[in-house]
Amino acid sequence: MSIQKPSIPKGTRDFGPAVVARRNYIFGIIRRTFEKFGYAPLETPTLENLSVLTGKYGDEGDQLLFKVLNSGDFLKDVTADDLTNEDGKATRRVLPKVAEKGLRYDLTVPFARYVVMNRGTLVFPFKRYQIQPVWRADRPQRGRYREFYQCDADVVGTDSLLCEAEIVLMMCEVLNALGLTDFTIKINHRGVLRNIYQALGGEGRESDLFVAIDKLDKIGRDGVTTELRERGFSAPVIDTLFELLSVSGDFQEKLERLLAGFVTAGVEADHADGYKGLRELGQVLELLRGFGFEQFGNLEFDPTLARGLSYYTGCIFEIKINNVNMGSVSGGGRYDNLTGSFGLPGVSGVGFSFGVDRLYDCLEELSLFPEGAAATTRCLIANFDADNMTAMLPVLRGLRAAGIASELYPEPAKLAKQFKYADGKGVAYVLLQGSEERAAAVFKLKDLRTGQEQTLTLAQVVAALA
Amino acid sequence: MSIQKPSIPKGTRDFGPAVVARRNYIFGIIRRTFEKFGYAPLETPTLENLSVLTGKYGDEGDQLLFKVLNSGDFLKDVTADDLTNEDGKATRRVLPKVAEKGLRYDLTVPFARYVVMNRGTLVFPFKRYQIQPVWRADRPQRGRYREFYQCDADVVGTDSLLCEAEIVLMMCEVLNALGLTDFTIKINHRGVLRNIYQALGGEGRESDLFVAIDKLDKIGRDGVTTELRERGFSAPVIDTLFELLSVSGDFQEKLERLLAGFVTAGVEADHADGYKGLRELGQVLELLRGFGFEQFGNLEFDPTLARGLSYYTGCIFEIKINNVNMGSVSGGGRYDNLTGSFGLPGVSGVGFSFGVDRLYDCLEELSLFPEGAAATTRCLIANFDADNMTAMLPVLRGLRAAGIASELYPEPAKLAKQFKYADGKGVAYVLLQGSEERAAAVFKLKDLRTGQEQTLTLAQVVAALA
Repeated sequence: MSIQKPSIPKGTRDFGPAVVARRNYIFGIIRRTFEKFGYAPLETPTLENLSVLTGKYGDEGDQLLFKVLNSGDFLKDVTADDLTNEDGKATRRVLPKVAEKGLRYDLTVPFARYVVMNRGTLVFPFKRYQIQPVWRADRPQRGRYREFYQCDADVVGTDSLLCEAEIVLMMCEVLNALGLTDFTIKINHRGVLRNIYQALGGEGRESDLFVAIDKLDKIGRDGVTTELRERGFSAPVIDTLFELLSVSGDFQEKLERLLAGFVTAGVEADHADGYKGLRELGQVLELLRGFGFEQFGNLEFDPTLARGLSYYTGCIFEIKINNVNMGSVSGGGRYDNLTGSFGLPGVSGVGFSFGVDRLYDCLEELSLFPEGAAATTRCLIANFDADNMTAMLPVLRGLRAAGIASELYPEPAKLAKQFKYADGKGVAYVLLQGSEERAAAVFKLKDLRTGQEQTLTLAQVVAALA
Repeated sequence: MSIQKPSIPKGTRDFGPAVVARRNYIFGIIRRTFEKFGYAPLETPTLENLSVLTGKYGDEGDQLLFKVLNSGDFLKDVTADDLTNEDGKATRRVLPKVAEKGLRYDLTVPFARYVVMNRGTLVFPFKRYQIQPVWRADRPQRGRYREFYQCDADVVGTDSLLCEAEIVLMMCEVLNALGLTDFTIKINHRGVLRNIYQALGGEGRESDLFVAIDKLDKIGRDGVTTELRERGFSAPVIDTLFELLSVSGDFQEKLERLLAGFVTAGVEADHADGYKGLRELGQVLELLRGFGFEQFGNLEFDPTLARGLSYYTGCIFEIKINNVNMGSVSGGGRYDNLTGSFGLPGVSGVGFSFGVDRLYDCLEELSLFPEGAAATTRCLIANFDADNMTAMLPVLRGLRAAGIASELYPEPAKLAKQFKYADGKGVAYVLLQGSEERAAAVFKLKDLRTGQEQTLTLAQVVAALA
């Protein structure tokens, strides 16, 4: 074995003790919220067959999948001809011969696969949450990693809008618990967007409008107007668009004004259902009122919200933390046919996801991590010499039996070194029993944050630390 | 997208809600024990550079590493000549050109890499635990998976035998907490094995003896004798071997008899330290006595214990559950030079690991999972009709505010269907408010395990479920 300077792959991270503890703090709040709302945990394998993953995330997604080399003689089916790249298709030809597995790219496709494979035994509606890492061979950059966690909750097998209302409740509950109070939950409905397309005579050209509207934040109204003119939309039509997009008022007022706008613009009722999107959003609002929901100030109906994923068909959600310059920390929506590509059509569902890395950065930027989040040893017992060490063993055992995370410094050493160890590890207390204390059957307990020292009996030490 | 019947890769598993809850029960006990003993959590990336992984697990291990295909044009450096396999080395030639990353194979090598990369900032002794999956391209079979979890705890930067004694304590604490009372912790020391080799004149031929002794369980004394005779050991020497291996008595007696045996056999004191292995085992025993350890009946000094991993140099451990037919559920040992191959020599450490899949199977076989382990919704509120659904929203919110995991059936449906849902999901209680109960401002609470039904006010319901 040659000596080497080790490194980790680009876009991956080691999480040391302090960071793990803080991440677990976030995971814990999300997990407890999901469970309180009746979502049950699911875990799927890291390795999925490429036949399951490929074609689900668009061409770009297929490129970003991490593929795992077949084991053994992975070259056995590859010929020299396969390598000829005059047609630019060599990798496409060779790939299926050398790799049949890939790394999980998101938690949604594995969830759909699981539902289809277990449809015979699952109880529907099936509510599951899943907190696991995913992998994307994206170009690493600040805040974008190749290995990162997603926290998803989805329910499939019901059309009930109760699920949408509860997603709003869960989003609020998690953010409130994390202390992130200044946030906006944006909500929209794909049906509303569809109606807006109709108002613009854009049926069948949704993607053009979609792309343009999505840029509103960046290029403003003038930019979007120019782009739409270039794509052949007339000035009056574009005026109608902005009229619809810019309805003002609270949730209810926007719903009503948008409905009036649709009627004025001569938009037909969306399919047989009437203006389904607006109606469903109204019902979600009604359910939230029924719950006694109090955070309407954090909820915004935003007709310009589009969301990237193609499979959404109903309500869509997105959360932005207002006082932090960062993309959305959570998003989701309803889909009609997630399991269709695996041969199980007609299973409607709705789900959402938290981005833990972004939540982490928000909490750090706003100094919202509680002090206790970095769980570590609470008490270090000093080790003076072999005799003292022996005497401290039952003391150590007693502290642990009382549930107090404790350590005895593993060998006799200078006190300064032992205190340095405690400091470096974030230990709160050091317990000492020198010969004087031993004679009196007491201990010195030093609080490392305040520097205060108390002389206590063992029972008092346990009481002070428990 | 063509419709396909989805599957998961061989040797991988989906964990549904009930299994996740039971696995988390085991993880929780292990985690809490590690933390109580001052071990802090570490997480390393799934993807490691192959330069870090290769050569650390022997030739067979290198074969079993999952390699990840480089992204983009992974063929760009591969030539037709590389594919020529007349020398049988085509895969070896092509591999480094198409894959530079692999999946984590164990938690020890990533830990060593982490220590070396962070040596400037870590506080030593560094005590970390790590609970993460690993991947091995092994032939899948009953109880052997390609993706499975390991739970490791290691401390590096100290020679103190306190660590060894505490490993015994942690092993007992975890097994006791899981209810696995009938177990044996086998302990040995590589120095003892080395002295036994010397007694047989086998210095430099350790591996021959090692392999033979390892088979004692399977082929018995006669088989081992035959094998050693074939390898050139004489009959008297083999007699000495079995005399040493078969010392009887408790831990202390075995230590003393083995020491006497070494002297008789003319074994020289192991290096400058005297019979270091025996002496260190004696010190571990002494420390356990100092702790007031009470489970000496579960601890066995087994001079035949060898352990497979080559990097062990001191004490070695292994746990067997006696009343279950299964391999060891935990093992570990001390190593002198884990980080040497990464350029940091002389960092001694000791660690051990629990095999969660085997612990799971033991608990299942012995019916030791507690009832509450499958955390799920505690209360389902029945949904009679739209009015009733609206009335139940604040009730649902109140239950959750009291920390009770609750659901409202998402749409009005036949009661039988709703009860079937609750049953299938393992929900303990169903709460109903028909028109009669509503008029009286009370609820019916049905316990699904006993079938008992109570009529209660909301406050009483909360009290009953909290």
